[in-house]
Amino acid sequence: MMKVAKHGGNIYEVASALGLAMEEILDFSANINPLGIPESLKAAIVDNIHIIERYPDPEYGGLVKAIADYHGVDQQWIAVGNGATELIFALAASLNSKNSLILAPTFSEYERALLKAKSEVHYYYLKEENDFQVDEGFKKMLNSEIDLLILCNPNNPTGQFLKRQQMMEILRQCREHGIRLVVDEAFIDFVAGGEMETMITAMHEYKHLYVVRALTKFFAIPGLRLGYAVASNENILRRMHDNREPWTINSLAALAGEIILKDEDYIQATKNWIEQERNNLFKALNDIEGIKVYKPEANYIFFSSSKNDRCLKEALLEKKILIRSCSNYKNLTDRFYRVAIKDSASNEKLVQALKEVIYES
Amino acid sequence: MMKVAKHGGNIYEVASALGLAMEEILDFSANINPLGIPESLKAAIVDNIHIIERYPDPEYGGLVKAIADYHGVDQQWIAVGNGATELIFALAASLNSKNSLILAPTFSEYERALLKAKSEVHYYYLKEENDFQVDEGFKKMLNSEIDLLILCNPNNPTGQFLKRQQMMEILRQCREHGIRLVVDEAFIDFVAGGEMETMITAMHEYKHLYVVRALTKFFAIPGLRLGYAVASNENILRRMHDNREPWTINSLAALAGEIILKDEDYIQATKNWIEQERNNLFKALNDIEGIKVYKPEANYIFFSSSKNDRCLKEALLEKKILIRSCSNYKNLTDRFYRVAIKDSASNEKLVQALKEVIYES
Repeated sequence: MMKVAKHGGNIYEVASALGLAMEEILDFSANINPLGIPESLKAAIVDNIHIIERYPDPEYGGLVKAIADYHGVDQQWIAVGNGATELIFALAASLNSKNSLILAPTFSEYERALLKAKSEVHYYYLKEENDFQVDEGFKKMLNSEIDLLILCNPNNPTGQFLKRQQMMEILRQCREHGIRLVVDEAFIDFVAGGEMETMITAMHEYKHLYVVRALTKFFAIPGLRLGYAVASNENILRRMHDNREPWTINSLAALAGEIILKDEDYIQATKNWIEQERNNLFKALNDIEGIKVYKPEANYIFFSSSKNDRCLKEALLEKKILIRSCSNYKNLTDRFYRVAIKDSASNEKLVQALKEVIYES
Repeated sequence: MMKVAKHGGNIYEVASALGLAMEEILDFSANINPLGIPESLKAAIVDNIHIIERYPDPEYGGLVKAIADYHGVDQQWIAVGNGATELIFALAASLNSKNSLILAPTFSEYERALLKAKSEVHYYYLKEENDFQVDEGFKKMLNSEIDLLILCNPNNPTGQFLKRQQMMEILRQCREHGIRLVVDEAFIDFVAGGEMETMITAMHEYKHLYVVRALTKFFAIPGLRLGYAVASNENILRRMHDNREPWTINSLAALAGEIILKDEDYIQATKNWIEQERNNLFKALNDIEGIKVYKPEANYIFFSSSKNDRCLKEALLEKKILIRSCSNYKNLTDRFYRVAIKDSASNEKLVQALKEVIYES
C-alpha cells in the first residue's frame, strides 16, 4: 500500500498543534503567489455564484477554449483537471507504463500515481555535489528498459530548471528509446522568460510528449483546483477522457480559467513581483552563514543547512514562521528546506528570523 | 475501453445546438432542488472567498466533523469526495471486486467505476411488468458468485425505493454470502421520512455496508461538487484514504458542507416544497393519457410513453423544455423518460407542454 503523501508544511495541522489561528502563522511552506486571487476573478465569482446550481459542462468547452487560445494550440490537445494532480494520475493510468523513471528528489505525487498505475518506478538520484542538477548519469538511464519519464521543470523542491534546448535533447533521446515524456511545468510561469522555455511549443512534432500545467500557484487559487495537460497524441487523450470521472472540476474553477488567463495586468504584476523578490530573497539568504542556498528559478528557494539538525523548522515555528522541511523527500535529509518567495515584508521577516535562529544556536 | 458516460440532458450541448442561452431552456433533465443555493452558503462564499488562496486541508477536518455530527456517527467512519462520484469510484477501486452486481436500469457510473476496477459486472434486469421494482428474482442473484452489490436507493432513474426493512433483509442476505453492499443514497433526503430509512444507522453492526451520499442535489450545489461515504470498515476506509488524490474537494465545497448541514430553515423549506410539488406533478402527469407514470419517491418522476417514439423529447425542446430521455440506460428504450420536479410554475409549464405534444400528435 502507498503511503499517504505529505505536502507543504500542512498549515492546518501546525496551527491546530500550536493552538493558533492559521492567519497568525507566516506560511512559507506552500508556493503560492502572494498577490492573492486576481480581483477580476473575485468579482466574477461574486457575480456568477449561481452557476454552482448547475452541473458543470461535462466537456468544459469554455475552459478548454480559453486554454487553447492562451497557448495557441488546437482545442483537441487540451485535457483539463482538478488541479495538475488529476492530470498526473490520469496520465499515469492511461500511459500504461511498465517501467517508469523519475528524479529523486521530486514532487511526490508522480511516484504515487505511477505505483497506483502498477508501474515499476525507477529513480535517478540527483547528486548534491552537482547541486541536484540533471547530469550525464541521468542521460544514461534513458534506455529501452524505461518506457515513461516524468520530469518536473523547474524541479520541486530543488528549483533546478532545464532550458528548452536541454529538454529537447532529452525529448529526442526519449523518442529514440520509445520513452514517453511527461513534463510537469507547474511552476514554469514563474521562471524568467518561462513562456519561451515551455515544451508546449514542441507538441506538434512529438506524439510522445505530454505537458502538465497548474493554474493554482501562479493565480493563487490552490483552493479552487485547476490544471490541464497538453498533448498531440489523440489516442492517449481519448483514453484519459473516457476514463475520467465526470465533473471533477467545479464550476467556479472552470469559470476562473476563462477569466484569469485573460488578466494581463495580474500576469504582469506577478512577473514584476517575482523578478524583484526572487533576487532580493536569494541575496539575503545567501548572506546568511551556515546555509547553502540554491539559485532559484521559480517562486521558491531550496537551501541546506550545514548542521544536521531538525531544529531549524521548529525554532522558526516558535516565531510563527512555517517553512517546508524536505526530509521526507527521497534522497534528501533533514538538512534540506524549501521556502516560498512571498511579499517583501514577509521575506524580510523570514530572513531576520533565520538569522536569529542560526546565529543564536 | 469504457464508453463516456452521458448524464442528464446536457443543457450545454442542447443550448449550443439550438443557439439558445442556457437560461432560455427549462431544464427538467437534472434533478436539482429548485430553491437554489441556500442564502447562508451564498453569504459564506462571498465572505470567505480568500480561502481559495490556500490549499484545502488535506484531511478536511472541519467538513468531516460537520458530517459526522449531522449523522451522529464517528468521524473515523466518514470519507469525503468530489461529489458522490469520487466515492463510487474510490469504493469500486478499494473493494477489489471480482464479480459485482448492479441493477438495470440504474445510475451509469456504477458500471463505469466497476469496469475501471476490473470487476466483472453482472446485471439484474428489472421487469417493466413489475414496475421495475426489486423482486424475488433479484434475491436469487445474491449468492456466493457475487462479491459486491451496488444499489441506488431510491433508484435512478426509476425512483423505486426500498424501505429500510427491505434493505436490511438484503443486507443480511449479503452477509450470508460474503457480499459487500454499497447503497447510494444520493436522493434519499428527498424521500418522505428518508431520515428514518437511511442505512447509515445500521453501520455499527455491519462491516460490509457502505453508504454513499451526495449534497449536490438537495442543496442545489452540483457545480460545487461534494459527497461523502459512511462505513465502519476501517480497513477499507484507510485504503480509500491512502489511494486518494490529494485536495480533490475544493475549499468552497468543503466550507459549504460546514454551512449547509446546519441550515435547518433551508432543509425544512425543501421538505415542504418536495412534499407538495411531488404530489401535484405526479397527479397532473397521471392525468395525461398515453403515458404511464411511476409513483415518485425522490425529486424526479419516471414515465413511459405508450408510443415507441423518440419524438417526445424533440417536440418538447421546440418549446424550450429539456427532459431526460432514458434510452441510453441498459434495459430501457426510447419510450422512457425522467423529469425533475421543479417549482410549481415550471411544473405546470411541463404538464401543459406535454399535453400539447401528446394530444396534438
